[in-house]
Amino acid sequence: MTGFATRDAFHTAFAAMPRPDAAAIAAARARQAQLTKPAGSLGRLEEIAVFIAGWQGQARPRLDRVQAVVFAGNHGVAARGVSAFPPEVTTQMVANFNAGGAAINALTQACGAELSVVDLTAEGPTADICEAPAMNEAKCLAALSAGAMAVDPAAQLLFVGEMGIGNTTPAAAICACGFGEGAAEWVGRGTGVDDAALAHKRATVDRALAFHRAHCTDGFETLRRLGGREIAAMAGAVLRARQLRIPVLVDGFIAAAAVLPLALSHPDMLDHCLAAHRSAEAAHGRLLAALGLDPLLDLGMRLGEGTGAALAVPIVRAAVMAHSSMATFEEAAVTDRA
Amino acid sequence: MTGFATRDAFHTAFAAMPRPDAAAIAAARARQAQLTKPAGSLGRLEEIAVFIAGWQGQARPRLDRVQAVVFAGNHGVAARGVSAFPPEVTTQMVANFNAGGAAINALTQACGAELSVVDLTAEGPTADICEAPAMNEAKCLAALSAGAMAVDPAAQLLFVGEMGIGNTTPAAAICACGFGEGAAEWVGRGTGVDDAALAHKRATVDRALAFHRAHCTDGFETLRRLGGREIAAMAGAVLRARQLRIPVLVDGFIAAAAVLPLALSHPDMLDHCLAAHRSAEAAHGRLLAALGLDPLLDLGMRLGEGTGAALAVPIVRAAVMAHSSMATFEEAAVTDRA
Repeated sequence: MTGFATRDAFHTAFAAMPRPDAAAIAAARARQAQLTKPAGSLGRLEEIAVFIAGWQGQARPRLDRVQAVVFAGNHGVAARGVSAFPPEVTTQMVANFNAGGAAINALTQACGAELSVVDLTAEGPTADICEAPAMNEAKCLAALSAGAMAVDPAAQLLFVGEMGIGNTTPAAAICACGFGEGAAEWVGRGTGVDDAALAHKRATVDRALAFHRAHCTDGFETLRRLGGREIAAMAGAVLRARQLRIPVLVDGFIAAAAVLPLALSHPDMLDHCLAAHRSAEAAHGRLLAALGLDPLLDLGMRLGEGTGAALAVPIVRAAVMAHSSMATFEEAAVTDRA
Repeated sequence: MTGFATRDAFHTAFAAMPRPDAAAIAAARARQAQLTKPAGSLGRLEEIAVFIAGWQGQARPRLDRVQAVVFAGNHGVAARGVSAFPPEVTTQMVANFNAGGAAINALTQACGAELSVVDLTAEGPTADICEAPAMNEAKCLAALSAGAMAVDPAAQLLFVGEMGIGNTTPAAAICACGFGEGAAEWVGRGTGVDDAALAHKRATVDRALAFHRAHCTDGFETLRRLGGREIAAMAGAVLRARQLRIPVLVDGFIAAAAVLPLALSHPDMLDHCLAAHRSAEAAHGRLLAALGLDPLLDLGMRLGEGTGAALAVPIVRAAVMAHSSMATFEEAAVTDRA
């Protein structure tokens, strides 16, 4: 069973989460100390290599299969004008993904990841979160399951991205709800709204929070009420990756907001995750700090689609290649410290 | 002529530096505005694509040939115990490079760069900069020329790295001299010296500065007196790359110190350079700020060899691929802003 048939099945998944392999971590650390370089001189690459070793369960891991999945969904709340782009752009961009013309197509090609697109727009938009839960229980389970089932069990690294006009609004609502705060701290300009639209977007999120906050008593309910199909799918994929011991590169603000309900459900839930980058969307840095994730990149990106994660893939691959292929001091007959 | 036969030939090179192609830059900017993404949402990737377009002289550049060169040299000042490693490690590491066992071997393979190693250790170490100029004029010209001649005119992106036990000491001396400061601001722990050795290293740099500072009246003289063979070679390579309109990714502290005399000789001299990363060597961030270079990565690396630059290559490649291969709003029939 790779999906989630019931609300309980979703929550039960948290109880049986695998942990990284402690012996592989110890062996990888020992190997790091013997490689022909000053100790610690590869900085975060050394930590990343040990991290991958732990999840892959071997001291010299490999990284041949990187999977990227983009989930697309439409949002009822987009009709309120919370985005700089009209809602039809979501399906237009799905066509662009399938034709190979979007940023994520170029960037997955550049980083050697296998890209698939999961289009969740066919059922129409979610309900307007100002007036109703985004999804009923069955729809939310279907979205979570679509995410879980998209994960290739043979992948050695996964990242998930999204397309959904208006989806910084539910993402901000999930964060504000999760941290017991108002919209002001979490709503930003998304694809680029002006000052008036930003104020309107904040008011929209506060209205959704007033409607749902008291009912968001667990991760499932938060995703169901305030999320969206592509957001729930990302959460389902990251949870499934954990079950499969596949490390995840978390993309931008929407992706981090999608996994926040998981993290709030279980404090160790994101131990298999690395933050790929800090987005220019203002709240993302704040969210990553709250999640205890230190981003690898800070390049002012704010596109979504998984583009920030794609940029971080070569860093993870380089870390693994250096770790697994470098010679030791003994092998290379290089003198260690004076 | 690809080397520098005389001191004047070196300085004359600055007078005839090519500039980026303004028409290609304008065309690349216009293209960026039409690609299927919110304007500005790829952050620094957009700037990088326009930068490469300008130096390559075409609105849709390519990045197929990336060249990496590691220069190795020995330093007389290393006999003073300024490094955590003994001087023989330089030649041992050259053998390790040639055998494919070093970090830069793994990382150039990971980023798809063609690596060559230029071993300048055969002539023995430079003179001890506390007591004499590191090189006489002929030796400095030979090192600058070795750097210049190593550059492949067909490369579309270049980075240079170094191996030279003790070389954070001359690098710090070059910086302190260039900015009219003392050793304290510029000397760090290099490969990892302890507190006592750090104090000794600072005193060593101050002694070298007292001997040479008044005579370092131009870029050539600074490199000749305070530099080293691999340091001068890096400067020669970066200057030659400019003549060839090849963009350069500047690696860590030594690489940035090597090009400082170029930058102080001509304010636009590093316009073809991007800073790959901010090293953990403390003075590097300060040096980059003084050079007006904003590093792409900050991963706590401090290995040298060009490893930081290798990590940044995929970012430049991703920027170029997204820029050159994405569909426009019109091509993809995607609606631009509401």
